[in-house]
Order: sequence, then C-alpha cells, then structure tokens
Amino acid sequence: MLYNIPMINNIRTIGIVGGGQLGKMMILEAKRLGFRIATLDPGAACPAHSISDVHIEAGFEDKEGYLKLAEISDVITYEFEHINVAMLEQLEQKGHTVLPSVTSLKIIQDKLWQKQALLKHGIPVPKFTEANTLQDLQDYYAAAKKPFFLKSRKGGYDGKGNYLVRGADDIEAGFNRLGGKELMIEELINFDKEVSVIATRAASGECVIYPIAENIHKSSILDTTTVPAAVSAKEKAQIMDIAAKVMECFGGVGTFCAELFVGKDGVMVNEVAPRVHNTGHYTIEACRVSQFENHIRAITGLGLGSTDMTVGAAIMKNIIGGTGQDGAAKFTGIEAAYKFPSASAHVYGKGEVKEGRKMGHVTVTGGSVKEVKTILSKINIECKAENKYKI
Amino acid sequence: MLYNIPMINNIRTIGIVGGGQLGKMMILEAKRLGFRIATLDPGAACPAHSISDVHIEAGFEDKEGYLKLAEISDVITYEFEHINVAMLEQLEQKGHTVLPSVTSLKIIQDKLWQKQALLKHGIPVPKFTEANTLQDLQDYYAAAKKPFFLKSRKGGYDGKGNYLVRGADDIEAGFNRLGGKELMIEELINFDKEVSVIATRAASGECVIYPIAENIHKSSILDTTTVPAAVSAKEKAQIMDIAAKVMECFGGVGTFCAELFVGKDGVMVNEVAPRVHNTGHYTIEACRVSQFENHIRAITGLGLGSTDMTVGAAIMKNIIGGTGQDGAAKFTGIEAAYKFPSASAHVYGKGEVKEGRKMGHVTVTGGSVKEVKTILSKINIECKAENKYKI
Repeated sequence: MLYNIPMINNIRTIGIVGGGQLGKMMILEAKRLGFRIATLDPGAACPAHSISDVHIEAGFEDKEGYLKLAEISDVITYEFEHINVAMLEQLEQKGHTVLPSVTSLKIIQDKLWQKQALLKHGIPVPKFTEANTLQDLQDYYAAAKKPFFLKSRKGGYDGKGNYLVRGADDIEAGFNRLGGKELMIEELINFDKEVSVIATRAASGECVIYPIAENIHKSSILDTTTVPAAVSAKEKAQIMDIAAKVMECFGGVGTFCAELFVGKDGVMVNEVAPRVHNTGHYTIEACRVSQFENHIRAITGLGLGSTDMTVGAAIMKNIIGGTGQDGAAKFTGIEAAYKFPSASAHVYGKGEVKEGRKMGHVTVTGGSVKEVKTILSKINIECKAENKYKI
Repeated sequence: MLYNIPMINNIRTIGIVGGGQLGKMMILEAKRLGFRIATLDPGAACPAHSISDVHIEAGFEDKEGYLKLAEISDVITYEFEHINVAMLEQLEQKGHTVLPSVTSLKIIQDKLWQKQALLKHGIPVPKFTEANTLQDLQDYYAAAKKPFFLKSRKGGYDGKGNYLVRGADDIEAGFNRLGGKELMIEELINFDKEVSVIATRAASGECVIYPIAENIHKSSILDTTTVPAAVSAKEKAQIMDIAAKVMECFGGVGTFCAELFVGKDGVMVNEVAPRVHNTGHYTIEACRVSQFENHIRAITGLGLGSTDMTVGAAIMKNIIGGTGQDGAAKFTGIEAAYKFPSASAHVYGKGEVKEGRKMGHVTVTGGSVKEVKTILSKINIECKAENKYKI
C-alpha cells in the first residue's frame, strides 16, 4: 500500500528500470529526500527490492511492466542501458518523463552510433567502422593486415560482446560468436591506463565533473578503481575537457560515465554509459556528494552537489564471485576489514553467488594512494558459495 | 517474503523497535552492508516502513509484536528509549541479543536512576532529589526557597514531562500536571550553552567520540545544532572527559548521546539518551562515518569508523511543523536550498504534518561556522499542511 508522502519539485515517485546494486545505491540517496521508489526488475530478490516501495516483477521487455511503472512514477530513470528503448520512447510520447532522455540512451546503447556521435563532436575515439557481413570483416582485414576488435553494437558489458580478432583465422569464429549481425570493427589501441570520469548534468545544462579514476580490469571485469589517477597534468586537462564535451554531446540529464584510454596513442574515449557507474562507487565515501545523490538531484530538478574529494585518495575494490562459485553467498573478511577505520564494505544483498557476479565492493580512503594501497593489501573480503560448488 | 541474503558476523537481520526518522537513518546505513531489517512500529506509514524488509505493525506495549520481532532478528536495537523494558528483558532472558543492553536502557529510562548512576561515577549533574508526594515538593521548597524543575522520571521528551516551579503557588499545579507520581526535583542551572556529545561504544569497550555540538532549542524542541561548539579549550577537555566517562558508566553497546549544560556553574550532564540522537544528524554530512553507521557497526560487532570531521563546520536545522499546522505535509524551499551545493535536505517521509512534529532537517557544511551560518540564513525550508488548517 502507498501512503501519502510530501512532494518535492512536483515529484513524489521515482521509477527505476533495473533493481541491481546501482539501483539500490540510487534508492539509498533518494530515500533521504523522502521520495517513493518504484522498481522494475525481473528478480524478486534483486538488491533494490527490499528498499523499493513498489517492486514490479517484470522482464526488461515486458510492456505491461513499463506501463505500470510509468503510471505510478513522476520521473523514470534506469540503472543500466540494455533496456527496451522502443517502450521508453512510447512512454515519453505519452508525456512521461524519462531521464536521461530516450534520445541519448538510444544513441549510446548502439556502440556504433555512440562512436559516430562522439566523433562528430570532435571527441577522440579509436578508429571504427560498421560491419554487417563476414565479407565486411574479411575486406577490412585484407586492407588493414592487423588484429582488430570485433564488437556487438548492442548489449555488451563486462567484456561480453567483444571479440579480439588476432588473424585471418579468427574472423569467422568471431563473426559467429557475436551472432553475425549488428557488428562494428574497432582498431586496437596502445594504452598504458584505463581511466574513467563520472559527471552529472542538470536539465539547466549545469554540469559537475568528478575526479579522474584509474581502473584495473581482470578478465574484462572491473577489479579496482584508484583515485586520483596517476596521469600527467597535460593528460588530466585533456581528460577533463573530453568529459565536459561528452556531457554536452549527449545532452543527457543525470549521471554519466566516460571510460577512456590513456597512453602512446593519446587520450580517447572507449565507451560512454548513460548511468551511474561501477567506477564511481568511490564517490560515496570520498566525495562530498556521491554520483548516486547527484543523479537523483539531476533527475528531480534539484541543484547539483559538490564533487570535491574529502580525502586525499581512495580505492574501490569489487567483491566478485570467484572461479567455480555457485550457491548461497557467504562473505568472509568483512569483520577483519572493519578493523581499519577507513574501510567501508558494501554488500549488495544478492543471495546467490556465481562466478564473475558482482556481490559487493569495499572502499578504502586515506591521505595518499600509497596509504590506501597499503591498507587495501591487508584486506581480503571474499564471497563464496556456502553449500555447493561447481565441479 | 524473505529471500536468502549473506550473513555478516552471524547476523542477517537487525530488529529495530521504532520506525521513526532515527530508525530510517539507521536502516539506510544497515542496507549498505546488506542487512535485512525488521521494524516494530504502530504506524503503518512510519518513516522506516518502506525500507524495512518486515514491518511489524504493533504498539510499543504489544507483547506479540516484540516476540515476532525477536523471532526473526539476530540482534535487536531501538531508536527511542520509552519502550517496554520488561518485554525486552524477557527477550534477553530467552537468549535474544538486545543492544544497547536492557540494563543500560532500564537505568537511563528512569531519569532519577540515570542521575544517580552518573553521580556515582563522578560525573557532574545538577542537584536532584526524588519526590513522591506533594508534601515532598512542599518540604523541598520550604527549605530551598527558590524555583526548581519538577520532572517526570519516565517518558518525557522535547520538554514534555518537565514543569518549572517558579514559586509556592506552582507546586500543586506542577504535581498534578505531571501525574502526581514517579517525580524528581532538579535545581535550576545557570548555563550559557547547551551542548551534546555523540559517542559510540563497541562490545570490546572501544569507544569513538564525535565533536562537541552546540544546540539551540525553541519551545523545548531542538532547532539547530552547530559544530564545532564555541566552547573554551578547558570546557572542551572537560566535556570530552565527561563523554568518555558517560560511555563507561552505562557500558552500553551502540551510539549514545550526552546533553550537557555549559556555563557559570561549570559543565554538567543534563540527560543521556541510549540511542542515536537528533543532535548527531550533522555527522551524516560532516563526519567520515555517521552516528547511524557507527551504531550499526557496534551492534553487529564490526569495528567502529572514524568520527573525524571532513569539513570545518556544519549546522543542522530541524524542519518542524509550525503553529496550527495539521494536514497533508507540503514542503517549500527545498529546490531553493539546493542552489547551495553544500546544503543537504532530509525529508522523513511523514505524510501528515502536525504542530511541533519533526518533518525533516537540513544540514549545511562549509569551512567555518560563520560561512555555514551565512548560507543557512538564505535557506528557508518549511513544511506546512497542504489542505487544512487548525483554527
């Protein structure tokens, strides 16, 4: 049952498509401001379900679910980008507010369109080209004569949807693996570092940008984010300039993330996400106002908060289901981690651990990167299956 | 329905007696760590209900409610002290964990016993004495010949349960007003300032103490809390020493608050609350780890976090239902407040505003008290009744 709650800026209820950890962390901020939350997610026990006022248990292609969400929400947002754009478009046409706008989502959701938009706005990106047939790939390789990335234009995440073509023999396998349609080719980039920048844009065009984060991936899944990133003053200026341009390019309202390569080939954008991002979790403990709070402020029309760091440095480390894990989730090491006063663990509340599944994260803050690295090296939080293992 | 969630330190579910704003803010921290929450509160639409996994709609004297809460909770805590100690005692005897312990709650809940305990531990308090009959009061006044405070030993808050006896003519009226039993007499104190100190104690005895907060009450209800308090170095040392002794005195596990008078008569403890406190709301934005997070850490056996301030100064101002307000709650001024990047509004989510009801608060942070005062003077958040007024 829904009870009367106060209205802020003509908004009482925020609808969120997706009830994972990103949705959960958004809700924790929205609840401080007293908003009501409706979540659409197929998982009855998704991380957001227990703190949502209404949980619509529906798939991301379920039209009835979207309609129900729209009916009770004053503004609709989303925690991931692989959702049904056509349905959101219909909601927008009916007069519902979707933020970031469906236009920006539609462009970003398609990696080819995304790169084309970035290029058009003078933002450096790796060389890329559309590829629709096996012949396209073979022609490209015959001319380029060097390895390349084959990517699905839609739906990829955590390395899924990417295929490294090392030579002529890989082409057909890659083409088939990625479903043989809606593909693009991207050149391989020489980079030393992967960094990301989180930024939030208000409807007014006001934009706040967070400090640059340096990311390390393991098996294509984010392992750690370190802030500040070890980049030169020149690189820093370039990255911040690019981040501002990215926010202008899509004209989105809300929190976005730009992932960039930094190295010999210069600074270029790898990917943009129209949403709060794993590499921005550090902002909860390390910045005045987190990426989640600023997202909620932006989509509800409230002024944006300061992105200043309150600490010298921070590291965020993901807690991910290890090899072969499959069963009821059990964490170890949290009690030990809390012996360090600047460690903060986040447990998403997923009951089942699976190999590669993001189960939580830990953030350590301190005066310097060296200091936080030392503390983190003494922390070992793991999430394993309690009662069964894959063999 | 309850789903499997990971266990931390043998705890899955935290039971909270009371679902008001203090409970809500505890839950927002507990949820980061993935705990399941069960709340006992008579209000179906209480601030905590929408973020609790289980809401037991039961009165604070309802035995069945307490039993149900205990059955599903691994640890039980409370957000206010005027609850049924006998029932909690029974739960403790049955082997359930209640933190802070029922022993400390029992002593603190009775203002006479509380003061006796403080006195016994060498902690300065105003002179006080038990008073059970009208004759006791008349005898006291005949000897003292000066105004005094008459207080109910149990159940008072926000000035309720206190009666200022100005002269002989007031004695009978005060005695009757406060129900004519379980009373105590307290001398009037000359004080310049009311301050409070929040502290959290772990089961290990480890204790962390927050900076001293200076409080201004209006009509006996807290209006603002300013940190740091404008006290001398000598007073500061005394206050911090007293705060540490208070935490030892009750041996409680969790967050406590000591309210003190500072002035000509020295520093003395006015009152202790065995719980998170309105004067500690500033810790959410201004300190590394808030009073709410440290409370959750303490009662779940996790190490305590740093109480260091991340800003030079902070002011918290309560948003309270004004004179004659009674109806559906409507806030104004939140959008305007958010033009200041260091302002943070909290809306508790109570649907109905009433005169004197705490509806939310706003915290402003900055470099100095002067700076935050200037910002706060430009902020005017109000909560009024939307559709009806008392005449």
